[in-house]
Amino acid sequence: MSLDEKYDSGNVFAKIISGDIPAAKIFEDDDVLAFMDAFPQSRGHALIISKTSQAVNLLDVEEDVLSKLIKTTQAVARAVTKALSPDGFRIVQYNGAPGGQSVFHLHFHVIPVYEGTPLGAHGGGMADMADLQVLAGDIRNAL
Amino acid sequence: MSLDEKYDSGNVFAKIISGDIPAAKIFEDDDVLAFMDAFPQSRGHALIISKTSQAVNLLDVEEDVLSKLIKTTQAVARAVTKALSPDGFRIVQYNGAPGGQSVFHLHFHVIPVYEGTPLGAHGGGMADMADLQVLAGDIRNAL
Repeated sequence: MSLDEKYDSGNVFAKIISGDIPAAKIFEDDDVLAFMDAFPQSRGHALIISKTSQAVNLLDVEEDVLSKLIKTTQAVARAVTKALSPDGFRIVQYNGAPGGQSVFHLHFHVIPVYEGTPLGAHGGGMADMADLQVLAGDIRNAL
Repeated sequence: MSLDEKYDSGNVFAKIISGDIPAAKIFEDDDVLAFMDAFPQSRGHALIISKTSQAVNLLDVEEDVLSKLIKTTQAVARAVTKALSPDGFRIVQYNGAPGGQSVFHLHFHVIPVYEGTPLGAHGGGMADMADLQVLAGDIRNAL
């Protein structure tokens, strides 16, 4: 999928926003949603998306939406750090399939890193939803 | 270096801001600076930093500084895309040495991805400054 692809309203994140697909939610308001990545690269891997924008990637996102997304990403990173005490973390945002993007609704990853534990592959094994709900609760309590 | 490390004003990006170390600059105003990564993972790999904040990482950066940084990152990503036509790109921001951070002055990476060309290692080989100046000029012209 190229960098100038049109938004597909049937993508999996649109279905999470609409409630058609379940997610372990960390935070939600009228504008943004933060939830656990169902295919985590590490314990506490979280995603932040806009609920209002149909931006596919960073190139086409509105300025105010982008500001809100990165502030929420910071808040989630702080909560993940407080709740799970990783040794570091990465913020990653993929654009275009060759760039690593797999869901074409703009999203930011918060990926905790624990010394001695290599990160899993992007889009690797699926996590257990009950485990993700516990993690989401721990992170939510640290917000 | 842990996630709550204090800012060291002798870091390499502080020296780039002060002019003590040269850089191939893409964009600069009173608040932010964008320049070519001297150890690029791909052609067009750029960095965006604050000139005013002493934030070490995402946890301690001021909200207004973060907003300006991500808007500049978007502008640089658009210019890199226009100038160099990558097939995709990644935004990456490392926090803490275990998280992959090597310079402890908050920075965002714009890493173009070209199909068929694997990304180099983070902090791999040093690029030729003259080559980086040409790339910086091409990206600057596309801003």
